[in-house]
Amino acid sequence: MRAKALSSLRADIASARRGGAFAPRERTAAEAIVRAVRRDGDAAVLRTVRKFDRPAARSRDLVLDSRTIRRFARACPRDTRRALDLAYARIREFHDRQRPRESARRDRRSDARLVPSPLDRVGALVPRGVAAYPSTALMTGVPSQIAGVRQLVVASPMPRDGSVDPALAYALELVDATTLYRAGGAAAVAALAYGTTSLGRVDKIVGPGNAYATAAKWLVSADVGIDALQGPSELIAVASSDADASVVALDLLAQAEHGAGAFAALVSDDADLLRRVVSALAKQRSARISLYRAKDLLAAVQAADDAAPEHVLLAGRGAAALSAHVRHAGAVFIGMRSAVAFGDYVAGTNHSLPTGGTARWSSALRVDDFVRWTSRVSMRGDLRDLARAGAAIAAHEGMRYHGASMEART
Amino acid sequence: MRAKALSSLRADIASARRGGAFAPRERTAAEAIVRAVRRDGDAAVLRTVRKFDRPAARSRDLVLDSRTIRRFARACPRDTRRALDLAYARIREFHDRQRPRESARRDRRSDARLVPSPLDRVGALVPRGVAAYPSTALMTGVPSQIAGVRQLVVASPMPRDGSVDPALAYALELVDATTLYRAGGAAAVAALAYGTTSLGRVDKIVGPGNAYATAAKWLVSADVGIDALQGPSELIAVASSDADASVVALDLLAQAEHGAGAFAALVSDDADLLRRVVSALAKQRSARISLYRAKDLLAAVQAADDAAPEHVLLAGRGAAALSAHVRHAGAVFIGMRSAVAFGDYVAGTNHSLPTGGTARWSSALRVDDFVRWTSRVSMRGDLRDLARAGAAIAAHEGMRYHGASMEART
Repeated sequence: MRAKALSSLRADIASARRGGAFAPRERTAAEAIVRAVRRDGDAAVLRTVRKFDRPAARSRDLVLDSRTIRRFARACPRDTRRALDLAYARIREFHDRQRPRESARRDRRSDARLVPSPLDRVGALVPRGVAAYPSTALMTGVPSQIAGVRQLVVASPMPRDGSVDPALAYALELVDATTLYRAGGAAAVAALAYGTTSLGRVDKIVGPGNAYATAAKWLVSADVGIDALQGPSELIAVASSDADASVVALDLLAQAEHGAGAFAALVSDDADLLRRVVSALAKQRSARISLYRAKDLLAAVQAADDAAPEHVLLAGRGAAALSAHVRHAGAVFIGMRSAVAFGDYVAGTNHSLPTGGTARWSSALRVDDFVRWTSRVSMRGDLRDLARAGAAIAAHEGMRYHGASMEART
Repeated sequence: MRAKALSSLRADIASARRGGAFAPRERTAAEAIVRAVRRDGDAAVLRTVRKFDRPAARSRDLVLDSRTIRRFARACPRDTRRALDLAYARIREFHDRQRPRESARRDRRSDARLVPSPLDRVGALVPRGVAAYPSTALMTGVPSQIAGVRQLVVASPMPRDGSVDPALAYALELVDATTLYRAGGAAAVAALAYGTTSLGRVDKIVGPGNAYATAAKWLVSADVGIDALQGPSELIAVASSDADASVVALDLLAQAEHGAGAFAALVSDDADLLRRVVSALAKQRSARISLYRAKDLLAAVQAADDAAPEHVLLAGRGAAALSAHVRHAGAVFIGMRSAVAFGDYVAGTNHSLPTGGTARWSSALRVDDFVRWTSRVSMRGDLRDLARAGAAIAAHEGMRYHGASMEART
């Protein structure tokens, strides 16, 4: 395992990202599933659940209401429950500070406001890996709850044995989910977007999914709100000579265990640190981990910023100062103590983050993703100046009645 | 012209919206243009400009830099300039109150922040009707400027005679646009999304366009940020018996002059008011204006809210009280003085608004559309409790290195 020149990082991450959040093949498959669900509703969803998740699935297994969710939650072991309680409390406290506030401008001629309201119905995707991901239910559910969304529907794939994960059920109870729809991928997205007999359509779909779910989110995005198109996970770690090699190795291995498509890179200006990380990786070294040598730490963080990855970790000397140079990233973890995994569970920040370079325009999931804003305008007083100016622009734009409608108010 | 039952409003607006912001035919055409521009760059853009806008267009006409924009702006007549100055000042004051603020949560174990940064490069679409729309340049440019976007590129179709509209140039100067790309529709969107020889790619495309531009925005939205998919304009006016019929008629006519696809509806509980509006419309009555009779004003505003249109106008008695019932709309104009057209130019609010029912999840263009947010996490102190909780959830989710990486920090 050799460290490559920093200049290769750009090409390597571009190559890992080739095709974006989904490939043409995945788009075509998602298109067929979306079409089938729009036509056949629950029956089409059940076909995909039987094909991909649980051959023995029955129609009545698809939807759980909040009472049934609560019943399953009772089986959640005490330790897991306490861990989820702590994560929930910290995620709440962080997102609580993002509560939207009305903005207003008043003068003698107008009262103009931009007023937030919660969305009515949101669908949140909670994917499964080898197990259910209760943490993702918290990450999508907490900002929804703080925004005041009226109904939160969660869609999560049915496992092969048909069981309901008690920890997932407990997380859903914490965030007041009203429904668990037990399907994933493109079928769940289509059901949420267009509704089926058992599931009303939602106003917005949030949260990560597999490539088929992501392709489906893009396909339905002219008909329903979506948050972002989250692709495979990414980490660029920047470490100085004084960083703890065995600890940095664990962050890289944690990143690599996200599975297929995950990208994990370490950049350092110190050949010895890179060697120590390689030996710490030892037998666990993964094809998904790449090492790069930079001429100095500033060049390292600039390359990380240029790549605009999901996660950046700054480990060792000068991490705080270097962090100012990372403007393009989903989340930045600053200092040797700041394991990226804290951000997945208990730091309080959201783990639904932009990937694939979309951090150049997209953000972590926020309370604002669960809110819409309405302008409210009330005019009064002497409107002659405003009508004259408005009418002059309207005349220029060929809109005579626009002008007349303003002048009629003077 | 007869008033219909209120129950028909839902079907009428659904029918006007059928097919969403673009039709399959428009999507197919946009797809071909996007593909051509990705392959041939400026040459493909020039072909579409010659075909749809100006047959005599030359390659060197495509891009104007800020110096050239300033030169054209000098020809802007004094009256138009003063009108644009007033509109600009008011739009600035309204949007200034939307400046994004960092949120933070600090305790003895963590410092977690959500930090805004302006986007680097934004492309704004400014469509043409019978003339250029300098007002749209202000509506997209002002929030971009307040956010601190580094480079604002504006794309606007070339008129048949090849001229540059001095008022548009003046508006572009006000908002510090660096470049005017003289193309519209799907070709402009593709050029902004993927870049050409003469135009670097942008991080996000904002602003309204024709159906081909909107279809193209959707098509490229997996590769670049977009604000929303704005379709044809909509107004639902609710008027009580005391409303001024001749003035309400002007708002409906102003709405109808938005042209093909525009939807203008008046709802009232008073047959006499409806009759007076019909006679005020007189010969200008338009096929695009529909009238509805409601049993009372509350039913009228509830129907408007249910339709989630771009604009709602509340004219006459009780407008302020009724406005509380309109939660789903792009913008609400409250009271007899509040011409919808004020919101298009000088109220200060943004005229780039959600249409087609997307107000259920989408919002007016805001400063936040020009900003992205990065999480910044710094852990410290005694992390044993957090690592234990995090590791418990990670273990449940099958992520052993996630747990180990947190425990290594204790």
